[in-house]
Amino acid sequence: MAPKACLELHRRVRFGDTDAAGVVNFAHLLRWCHEAYEESLERFGLTAAEVFPTPGSLLEVALPIVHCSADYFRPLVCGDAITIRLVPVRLDLGSFEVRYSFTSSDQSVAQGLTRHLAIENPSRRRCALPTAINRWLEASNLGGIQPV
Amino acid sequence: MAPKACLELHRRVRFGDTDAAGVVNFAHLLRWCHEAYEESLERFGLTAAEVFPTPGSLLEVALPIVHCSADYFRPLVCGDAITIRLVPVRLDLGSFEVRYSFTSSDQSVAQGLTRHLAIENPSRRRCALPTAINRWLEASNLGGIQPV
Amino acid sequence: MAPKACLELHRRVRFGDTDAAGVVNFAHLLRWCHEAYEESLERFGLTAAEVFPTPGSLLEVALPIVHCSADYFRPLVCGDAITIRLVPVRLDLGSFEVRYSFTSSDQSVAQGLTRHLAIENPSRRRCALPTAINRWLEASNLGGIQPV
Amino acid sequence: MAPKACLELHRRVRFGDTDAAGVVNFAHLLRWCHEAYEESLERFGLTAAEVFPTPGSLLEVALPIVHCSADYFRPLVCGDAITIRLVPVRLDLGSFEVRYSFTSSDQSVAQGLTRHLAIENPSRRRCALPTAINRWLEASNLGGIQPV
Repeated sequence: MAPKACLELHRRVRFGDTDAAGVVNFAHLLRWCHEAYEESLERFGLTAAEVFPTPGSLLEVALPIVHCSADYFRPLVCGDAITIRLVPVRLDLGSFEVRYSFTSSDQSVAQGLTRHLAIENPSRRRCALPTAINRWLEASNLGGIQPV
Repeated sequence: MAPKACLELHRRVRFGDTDAAGVVNFAHLLRWCHEAYEESLERFGLTAAEVFPTPGSLLEVALPIVHCSADYFRPLVCGDAITIRLVPVRLDLGSFEVRYSFTSSDQSVAQGLTRHLAIENPSRRRCALPTAINRWLEASNLGGIQPV
Repeated sequence: MAPKACLELHRRVRFGDTDAAGVVNFAHLLRWCHEAYEESLERFGLTAAEVFPTPGSLLEVALPIVHCSADYFRPLVCGDAITIRLVPVRLDLGSFEVRYSFTSSDQSVAQGLTRHLAIENPSRRRCALPTAINRWLEASNLGGIQPV
Repeated sequence: MAPKACLELHRRVRFGDTDAAGVVNFAHLLRWCHEAYEESLERFGLTAAEVFPTPGSLLEVALPIVHCSADYFRPLVCGDAITIRLVPVRLDLGSFEVRYSFTSSDQSVAQGLTRHLAIENPSRRRCALPTAINRWLEASNLGGIQPV
């Protein structure tokens, strides 16, 4: 049986995430989104080297982010525990997006989105998603709403 | 005569803005947006202390970002010179957004958006935009569409 | 019996920690140091609000960093698992430092240091360390070298 | 006549540089050091591609930072104008350091240091500093100690 993807992650607001308004600075949320995406891939069993460029391992396919967005519902302060839920969605053969919802103390505090496009190295032409990402996208939907 | 707002700013990609893909990491663009917004306010003559909280100067009105987004059209590498153009838009009495377009070597490379909401301290209830921001928003449109 | 402090923590290198050299950018290591310090306090049972300023909770004593340093022995790449060991040391009644050693695959990869000074709010005059920090400093040395 | 290096640079504290203590977070100072180093190289006439890796331009020599430190004398708040003075020093044929002093309103506020080692790609063996860096190091000392 195929493994399910791990789509619920946890982190805590750190002091360096805040700004002089006393709450989390908006720009850090997008970093948290990407780190949650990386952690989900890793827990699924993919190594970073399969998906992200590392020295001496030029990947054939890069997955640059072509769009992102975030909405902020409530302020977060240093020490707050956050739950991050991911919903990865394949958009077509060569792109996918990940939707992120952030809750703290069972309240919705923010949401984010990153959209990723597969391109060939070094031509930067659009291409198909790598197999590793396709496996993760499929596994991400195993726990979803089943058809009747 | 009222001063015009300065809405065209310049920066250069620094090494710390890149990631192992060799190009600018997506999350830094949102930081650049906010820094361009701050620089525009400053060049217009507003001090940071009029708009942003500083120790011992509790502002009556905070302007948290409630939404942001970005689109990435071309990769940027360390050393690239970037021009950032701002289009500030008042949405209603208590909120505004700033649209940012990024060009490098006369090519469009990215765009961003931040949406800001005025709230009272410490109640966090919605309120009217501060006078300083209203003056900047009005000055931002002086160079805009000309009357026939 | 007094609880021991948790002084061994774990994290993984994320893509946003790297730069175009393909390895971790030096400046992120200092952020990791501070996050490890925060996590150690939290695991010891201190809340962030006892040690770090949060809105509406003005602390009597702030603990600004007055000095930091780092040494880099080996490059780290995206996905590397890191172990961080902390050695907190009280320097005098009003200051302490934390030494951090970073290992990956049982090899020493880096070390860091942060030095913190207790000051009163809002005068910024030097003062004694807060009780919470003193408890953590004492608990940090419980697991140390035992008398014969 | 050889050009002198530009060793005095300016920046302003931005809101994202602060934390919930209301002042600049310590970790950002190291980023400012590196950005000042990059700006000094650029003003001297070196392109980023001569010194820093960019996609498709594998440099023969990398200059990783092997040590850094910083001291913090006074708090900085959002909007503060900062002057950064650099003192680059060659340590031996294969390494150099840059000392940074930060002033604001003519007061010393902080100092920093980065130490860089030349290594060959991809062996990571120590080697001689690249010519471009040597030229900048020499030009940095033209305005230095005056003959009696």
